[in-house]
Amino acid sequence: MRSLISILDLSVEELDELIATAKDIIARPEAYRESCRYKKLATLFFEPSTRTRLSFEAAMLELGGSVLGFSEASSSSAAKGESMADTAKIVSCYADIMAIRHPKDGAPYVAARNASVPVINAGDGQHNHPTQTLADLLTISREMGRLSNLTIGLCGDLKYGRTVHSLIEAMSRYEGVKFVLISPAELKLPGFVRYNVLEKLGIPYTEVTSLDDAMGQLDVLYMTRVQRERFDDPAVYERLKDSYILTKEKMELAKENMCVLHPLPRVNEISVAVDDDPRAAYFRQALNGKFMRMALILKLLKEAEENPRREKVEDGGWRHDLRCPNSRCICHTEQELPPAFRLTDREAGIWRCVYCEQVGVE
Amino acid sequence: MRSLISILDLSVEELDELIATAKDIIARPEAYRESCRYKKLATLFFEPSTRTRLSFEAAMLELGGSVLGFSEASSSSAAKGESMADTAKIVSCYADIMAIRHPKDGAPYVAARNASVPVINAGDGQHNHPTQTLADLLTISREMGRLSNLTIGLCGDLKYGRTVHSLIEAMSRYEGVKFVLISPAELKLPGFVRYNVLEKLGIPYTEVTSLDDAMGQLDVLYMTRVQRERFDDPAVYERLKDSYILTKEKMELAKENMCVLHPLPRVNEISVAVDDDPRAAYFRQALNGKFMRMALILKLLKEAEENPRREKVEDGGWRHDLRCPNSRCICHTEQELPPAFRLTDREAGIWRCVYCEQVGVE
Amino acid sequence: MRSLISILDLSVEELDELIATAKDIIARPEAYRESCRYKKLATLFFEPSTRTRLSFEAAMLELGGSVLGFSEASSSSAAKGESMADTAKIVSCYADIMAIRHPKDGAPYVAARNASVPVINAGDGQHNHPTQTLADLLTISREMGRLSNLTIGLCGDLKYGRTVHSLIEAMSRYEGVKFVLISPAELKLPGFVRYNVLEKLGIPYTEVTSLDDAMGQLDVLYMTRVQRERFDDPAVYERLKDSYILTKEKMELAKENMCVLHPLPRVNEISVAVDDDPRAAYFRQALNGKFMRMALILKLLKEAEENPRREKVEDGGWRHDLRCPNSRCICHTEQELPPAFRLTDREAGIWRCVYCEQVGVE
Repeated sequence: MRSLISILDLSVEELDELIATAKDIIARPEAYRESCRYKKLATLFFEPSTRTRLSFEAAMLELGGSVLGFSEASSSSAAKGESMADTAKIVSCYADIMAIRHPKDGAPYVAARNASVPVINAGDGQHNHPTQTLADLLTISREMGRLSNLTIGLCGDLKYGRTVHSLIEAMSRYEGVKFVLISPAELKLPGFVRYNVLEKLGIPYTEVTSLDDAMGQLDVLYMTRVQRERFDDPAVYERLKDSYILTKEKMELAKENMCVLHPLPRVNEISVAVDDDPRAAYFRQALNGKFMRMALILKLLKEAEENPRREKVEDGGWRHDLRCPNSRCICHTEQELPPAFRLTDREAGIWRCVYCEQVGVE
Repeated sequence: MRSLISILDLSVEELDELIATAKDIIARPEAYRESCRYKKLATLFFEPSTRTRLSFEAAMLELGGSVLGFSEASSSSAAKGESMADTAKIVSCYADIMAIRHPKDGAPYVAARNASVPVINAGDGQHNHPTQTLADLLTISREMGRLSNLTIGLCGDLKYGRTVHSLIEAMSRYEGVKFVLISPAELKLPGFVRYNVLEKLGIPYTEVTSLDDAMGQLDVLYMTRVQRERFDDPAVYERLKDSYILTKEKMELAKENMCVLHPLPRVNEISVAVDDDPRAAYFRQALNGKFMRMALILKLLKEAEENPRREKVEDGGWRHDLRCPNSRCICHTEQELPPAFRLTDREAGIWRCVYCEQVGVE
Repeated sequence: MRSLISILDLSVEELDELIATAKDIIARPEAYRESCRYKKLATLFFEPSTRTRLSFEAAMLELGGSVLGFSEASSSSAAKGESMADTAKIVSCYADIMAIRHPKDGAPYVAARNASVPVINAGDGQHNHPTQTLADLLTISREMGRLSNLTIGLCGDLKYGRTVHSLIEAMSRYEGVKFVLISPAELKLPGFVRYNVLEKLGIPYTEVTSLDDAMGQLDVLYMTRVQRERFDDPAVYERLKDSYILTKEKMELAKENMCVLHPLPRVNEISVAVDDDPRAAYFRQALNGKFMRMALILKLLKEAEENPRREKVEDGGWRHDLRCPNSRCICHTEQELPPAFRLTDREAGIWRCVYCEQVGVE
């Protein structure tokens, strides 16, 4: 039995298998509509995210299964102080698989270690959101016909955008991929992604500040929102904001078979006038998210049936004497949960929190 | 493919067809319980309305379909500022039909223009609530055996009660219908309904202030609540309030086969003691609402299957240079939505907002 | 047609029958997974209780039925002031059975008197929570192999813990049961349970303050939480709190085949380190709750089918001239609901509120 906490829990072969299943579902939906008969998905949304929740629920229903759960923490026992571990154990009594959205980094990981059914991370704080990346991958594959040999522009807030980091990690494992990182200086890709992923794997990338200049070379443009509250100086935001809004005019600079992605919801970072452009793939991307979630639910339920035992947590060599500096990490609030750090970079001696992946401090 | 935004979207023939389907469902429920197998209804309730939501959900479940959605805005992406248009596009990926309740006038209309599945207006602000009117019509038809040749008393708040306006519009299309408008002077039927519907179509009506006096001539009594906050002078409210409360004593003045309707929930405008009177039809009315929603879902899904293309919005001759004076109208908050007005009265030169139907101003 | 409001609504024979059904469901789940096809459960949760709600929903889904409802009052028409009676009548139009959680004592009883489908009390204020007791009974039966000849320790807050009172009432009807009441003086079992149940039926019991001392003689240990806010003097709480926390060390004092129950959620009254002890039955108890709810739903739906008429409320000899002193009682807020008291102790002349069971005052 396995869970999906980070996109890196899946090998490239597994990603390709999920994409193949999703495409088969698209081609023959009626072949899958009883696949999960008598199975139940629990959607545990400790913070609201309608789009993601409805996507999971639609996925399960289209597989013939049923759904139960909650859509915000105030409806949950969490208000009474129940730990994530206890909730995971209890919900394992009621469902065959669960999808968890949580404001704390690492919460789905704690759930997966305690549940007796598979856990899917549906977004944990600033940390991971692997099923969004699955949606992105199927979209690129369907729009471009391939996942290799692509120039991918990532535009907007590259500093805090977890979907961007996750997509870089996932796409870096395919051949011939180049990245163009388009952002204001204030919102550049953080060093840990640049060094640990791009440089370590030798992936070519450039960093630019102008979307207009980058536009012409892109096969894929991944848009994110530039939020006012990320800037110390409002004047800088006011000067910059329009250059990261995708308009019909900017689309004229792009290749004819380029495609535009966006994790949605958008506010104003893509003009409504772009929606009718055939290259605007972001609503198809939402649909693809449903199909990938269907493929994922099928895969995890099949694995759980074949091997009902939870994968052993490898805690060989963990340290428990460091402190996690991330105030949003589940380790600070979960009852009787000891801090734990794993060695992620032997040469540099970097120990990262097993829950939220931040570097531990003495 | 069609949506239902206003009761006037349906012809008299279509209303009769829906009523006939509902009666067949009542007679043979088992014939319908797999009709919507593999179909999904999304219930998007941007403000809570348990009764209406549960009625839609029960309707879909009794047709063998399934349901997903949300019951208040705080659980929805609207909190993150997603536009109605985007929500409609996204939810079209997850469901085969959607029912929308929204505090803004015109929101379901905007959704219908952007969705790729049928949209049902489940109540928009002060504007429309067509499925309530469907429930009313089936109730009158079942209780009285006909929809024509009836004297219908409308009692209470006729000024703000959208269900009252909608019922007048719908019933005015049947033969031999007379209205008795029973309300305090402060809450009389507004001019635009009186002139545009009753007078224009030559429907006989009287306006009275005493429920007791009107009681004896009515075939149907439609009760609504008189709310304290509608009165400028609390003393006027205090003097009037009891005369618009239906009691056992008042029921003694009524015909033996009269029937009492109420859109529910009631607070105290009908005494609980009236519930056991066989003429009290308001709980049967709630049941009828479910059956009409079943008939409506069947009709719209069938039309969408036969013709998946969205009906073209006729924007020939719309004006975009007026201003909508209605602060609750969706046109003031929806992203990149231009104001639009259609000519509704050529002689008087009246242009009405296409979203909320208020008269546009220069 | 019957409802379940209090555990005492069920005879010992009926409890044994429910336990037998639940064990058969556990043995042959596939035999039951279409039992409630085309049936609908409404979960009306006027206050949040995720665990209980999900347990009911999972139960209905595993019987092949479907579920609709709400998870907190803000999503419900109650916000508009609808009475419990009206809600029960309306929801009877939408569902075949309903489970109600409500902050007011007596609310499910009012619902049961007005609904035309069976009502299950899923917890009403400080009053009853009979399906928790059903879970407790199945757990004791499965863990110990019997419900008779047991020494049952009840530990913690015995004053306010409704699950404790309910379990005492239920277990007192079995042979050879002894109770050990373990609590601080401030939270002792109230007189009305001690006198009306234990002493009246001649059930042996002891009252002690030390969990350590009692541990060795128990077959069953039922833990509850000792809450700070129950103490007038915080210093007393601080001095006592640790002695009512179950730890690995305390477990060493217990019999080898003892079992630990807890209604959950727990906060810190049982150390996480106890979870791995084979005698820790509280997560299995949650699973058992689902199976008992399945058995209960089956039973009530079967009875409703055989006899659709609501059981007549016996109001012979009720008094209406007393006052209910319980501010949480539904009788103070429900529209047009007269106070009502039934004679529960002829000799002592005790009249109790029919809604909340508190003693009426002149």
